[in-house]
Amino acid sequence: MSKIQRIGTSARWSDVVIHNEVAKWVEVAGDFSLDIRGQVGQVLEQIDQTLIQIGSSRNHLLQILIFLSDLNAIAELNEQWDRWVPQGAAPIRACVQAGLGKGCLVEMVIEAVVVS
Amino acid sequence: MSKIQRIGTSARWSDVVIHNEVAKWVEVAGDFSLDIRGQVGQVLEQIDQTLIQIGSSRNHLLQILIFLSDLNAIAELNEQWDRWVPQGAAPIRACVQAGLGKGCLVEMVIEAVVVS
Amino acid sequence: MSKIQRIGTSARWSDVVIHNEVAKWVEVAGDFSLDIRGQVGQVLEQIDQTLIQIGSSRNHLLQILIFLSDLNAIAELNEQWDRWVPQGAAPIRACVQAGLGKGCLVEMVIEAVVVS
Repeated sequence: MSKIQRIGTSARWSDVVIHNEVAKWVEVAGDFSLDIRGQVGQVLEQIDQTLIQIGSSRNHLLQILIFLSDLNAIAELNEQWDRWVPQGAAPIRACVQAGLGKGCLVEMVIEAVVVS
Repeated sequence: MSKIQRIGTSARWSDVVIHNEVAKWVEVAGDFSLDIRGQVGQVLEQIDQTLIQIGSSRNHLLQILIFLSDLNAIAELNEQWDRWVPQGAAPIRACVQAGLGKGCLVEMVIEAVVVS
Repeated sequence: MSKIQRIGTSARWSDVVIHNEVAKWVEVAGDFSLDIRGQVGQVLEQIDQTLIQIGSSRNHLLQILIFLSDLNAIAELNEQWDRWVPQGAAPIRACVQAGLGKGCLVEMVIEAVVVS
């Protein structure tokens, strides 16, 4: 069996799991008082931080599944997303509207390849 | 190509697929007449049964994506979830509200590493 | 690190990513003016085309996560799905209702093993 690596494991969940070179994790904004622009920006920053932490990069993203509490906010999402995604190395992406926790406007499920 | 193993394959879906050491499957409660506590308990029991069947364990869970028909039920979910998840080996978890089939209150998509 | 292969990469997303023998991609119908039968048929055809393009087949599907804009349309989905899925090689499947983009009635997230 290939090793399972867990980062930030609490009683409820792990922040990241890594197996067979692939890291998976879930991000919501640290500050739910922010509007959608603020929460998207924060989630993308948090993804960057996790990518650094696990020895990966934006160029190694495989998939991001995005849940928005209001799909009308997709323009605000895309504005920041398009600047954030590396040219020529975009992940696949699905984006749907779902009910999220109180104050949470965006939740992302991420998969990236660990480089080292 | 690495072998694909399928368990419980019907005309519509397989109960489990295994590839590259990773098993994936979807669980809903066997009894939709149960309330949310009952359905969550049943889904977690069914996950245990599948883990045994495939030669895995709660310690080898990678990811669980949870759909609740009513996110207000998250307290009832967490109460059972926190007792069920093994200390120090929690999977990553996303939990959102989505429309589920008639009577279905919770649906989970599970990934776990097969040990043997 | 195993190679990441990307197909149809734009500034926003890739059409397909392949890593460790597994291809992942997202499909929505090319023509949003179609009704649910039309959109489901088109999405399944598009999956077939991608399977051919990546050197895979319906027999190598691992998982399909289906988002319907109206879960009442599941009968129409299943009618075409059951004819489309290969006997004895069905993937795992989750199907929930979520808010989709304007005119979009069905969105699928697909994983399949690349054969060659």
